[in-house]
Amino acid sequence: MTSTGPGAGAGAEAGEEERVARAALTRVIEPGDECGGRWLRAFGPCGLMARLIAPESGEAALPGATTRRLAAYRIRAAAAEPHRDLAAVAAVGGRFICPGDQEWPTQLDDLGDGRPIGLWVRGRADLRIWALRSVAVVGARACTPYGAHMAASLGSGLAERGWVVVSGAAFGVDGSAHRGALAARGATVAVLACGVDVVYPRGHAGLIGRIAEQGLVIGELPPGAHPTPSRFILRNRVIAALTRGTVVVEAEYRSGSLVTARSAQKLGRFTMGVPGPVTSGLSAGVHELLRGEGVLVTDAAEVAELVGDIGDLAPDRRGPVVPRDLLDPVSARVLEALPARGAVAGEQVALGAGTTADETLGRLYELHSLGFVERQGDNWQLTTDAIRRSNARRGGT
Amino acid sequence: MTSTGPGAGAGAEAGEEERVARAALTRVIEPGDECGGRWLRAFGPCGLMARLIAPESGEAALPGATTRRLAAYRIRAAAAEPHRDLAAVAAVGGRFICPGDQEWPTQLDDLGDGRPIGLWVRGRADLRIWALRSVAVVGARACTPYGAHMAASLGSGLAERGWVVVSGAAFGVDGSAHRGALAARGATVAVLACGVDVVYPRGHAGLIGRIAEQGLVIGELPPGAHPTPSRFILRNRVIAALTRGTVVVEAEYRSGSLVTARSAQKLGRFTMGVPGPVTSGLSAGVHELLRGEGVLVTDAAEVAELVGDIGDLAPDRRGPVVPRDLLDPVSARVLEALPARGAVAGEQVALGAGTTADETLGRLYELHSLGFVERQGDNWQLTTDAIRRSNARRGGT
Repeated sequence: MTSTGPGAGAGAEAGEEERVARAALTRVIEPGDECGGRWLRAFGPCGLMARLIAPESGEAALPGATTRRLAAYRIRAAAAEPHRDLAAVAAVGGRFICPGDQEWPTQLDDLGDGRPIGLWVRGRADLRIWALRSVAVVGARACTPYGAHMAASLGSGLAERGWVVVSGAAFGVDGSAHRGALAARGATVAVLACGVDVVYPRGHAGLIGRIAEQGLVIGELPPGAHPTPSRFILRNRVIAALTRGTVVVEAEYRSGSLVTARSAQKLGRFTMGVPGPVTSGLSAGVHELLRGEGVLVTDAAEVAELVGDIGDLAPDRRGPVVPRDLLDPVSARVLEALPARGAVAGEQVALGAGTTADETLGRLYELHSLGFVERQGDNWQLTTDAIRRSNARRGGT
Repeated sequence: MTSTGPGAGAGAEAGEEERVARAALTRVIEPGDECGGRWLRAFGPCGLMARLIAPESGEAALPGATTRRLAAYRIRAAAAEPHRDLAAVAAVGGRFICPGDQEWPTQLDDLGDGRPIGLWVRGRADLRIWALRSVAVVGARACTPYGAHMAASLGSGLAERGWVVVSGAAFGVDGSAHRGALAARGATVAVLACGVDVVYPRGHAGLIGRIAEQGLVIGELPPGAHPTPSRFILRNRVIAALTRGTVVVEAEYRSGSLVTARSAQKLGRFTMGVPGPVTSGLSAGVHELLRGEGVLVTDAAEVAELVGDIGDLAPDRRGPVVPRDLLDPVSARVLEALPARGAVAGEQVALGAGTTADETLGRLYELHSLGFVERQGDNWQLTTDAIRRSNARRGGT
């Protein structure tokens, strides 16, 4: 159940046949395989599936891959059951979104041929709108108490400033960042390296369940798919591309978090790092980053200040990007529940809108991304621009 | 007893009368008083002293100062006893150096009218030559054990790489940096905000004495002068101007160390900072610096790499700046005591040169600045360039 404001402008929604083919391809092509991306571009999702399945199509039909990889892809294609996968994700309250869908985060297109074939999504909120105001907080699994503290503090501080916190649901820094956002009744997105119905790590079953309720759990891999080392690495490019910037909290040399940070740099996103004691190996990777392009940040305010400067992704600075009249009914009700002056708690807005607290929260973050509302500590209020427009509208009728 | 290599090229030595006038003026004009600097430029040291002393010269004769300050300067000028001051510094084995002297560090001229009138110096080494390869390490007095550890580690690490460590002899970071350099049998310079015969802080009597033996203790203020808050602040510009770069180890917001760092920046020197936990107020000032122009450094190797890049101040990269034949006799003996191949301990060089270990050490750092030798850990060896020139010389005779 997603809001479907008309602001997407990302072309026509994927047709049903194409959607099923893309769902099947997420089981066939490994995340980030640019060769697969080129095939997809050349033949379209249906054409590519046909070529992978057809027993008579030789290697010439699908150039660029090793014989071995192509053989593995053919076996997978033959075994793919996309309708079952689509049903499985629907059974856990999820969906499958494709390029061209209104909910597709178009910034992922920056990944070129490495763009995800589609995304499996669990949770209420609109991924595209949330991602407009999102920041990644990533770091070491085996972090220190200092790292955990900083991640939680950034997670809650960013949430309190109306930012969506994106991370990888791993132990350590990732988990602390998600928990910090959740604790502040904020919005958070977990990007998994496995199916969105697979709980990994097992110890984070409760956390991932909570994120699916209050936030979003997303991934490139179909239901039931398990993580592998390369999938973890390639998952990081999605975190980097989805967000306006990546903050690395603690990272050793050559760690996965630095991969995310470097992806972010390559994609023109902001790369930030939280310094720590030079005597800690877990800060060594961060310091390396900060000696390069990375910007040193010490709190959520500094992060928000930095990433808030991107003009073309900051609709709140130019007023709402979607006219009020075109909001979907639930979002419109949530917006109506806000007082003309002053800030109120999310629970109070939920009462006024007649919907659940979690649903309301998701809508409030969407309305924030769209420039209608802003968060002040624990409360929400209309933006000056939304009030102005609302007054103009009343005056006009 | 300073080496007087002919590489200075800073004009004629100050005449005796002018030297005495400058010595007197260090007791009259406060450090960094640019108004005093303009008078000095306009009237010369003797002319300025004459105007300050002459009872009939009105304010028009010395424009720009407040009546009160001018009155104070006149009283001080009348009371000045430069010959006594020069004798006092000689009594503690010191000297007074002036712009134009061979030992004058010409990089101080970057301070413009805020350039020191002269410098009172205790210690064996040649300040100008040492300063060519020097780095400042400064920071909080009330530092944490982490800050003390990092300062000592940078002090010894820089000394081991042949760099002269400059600091302010204060408690905390300064003291640790000096001690680190001394412990590595390295070269270190203490820049005081009082007379070079005054022990401040009292608790550093042993340390300052040791620096005067093994390194250099310098300052703008005449013998017996005591430090004041403004003198501490203005002392920092000398540390910044003297060195190729300043490393701040721990500093709160608005601390004196940040003043040094900002002076360094303004003067085009490198500004560096050692990060620490964001949760420590003593790292807050450093992080602020690193969010601006400051470069994050985590060890002495990174500092040396950065500051070693200045072409015009790096004679070692272009071969010796003083011909071997023009070295003073003691330096020449120390140089002769080094083997043609391989590295030896400073003590062994001292035996060969027939001089003391401290004297030898000072000479070795001078020879390093001049490009003849380099330090490898605890040992010293000829540079490739010095060997090449030495061979060419032998071949030629």
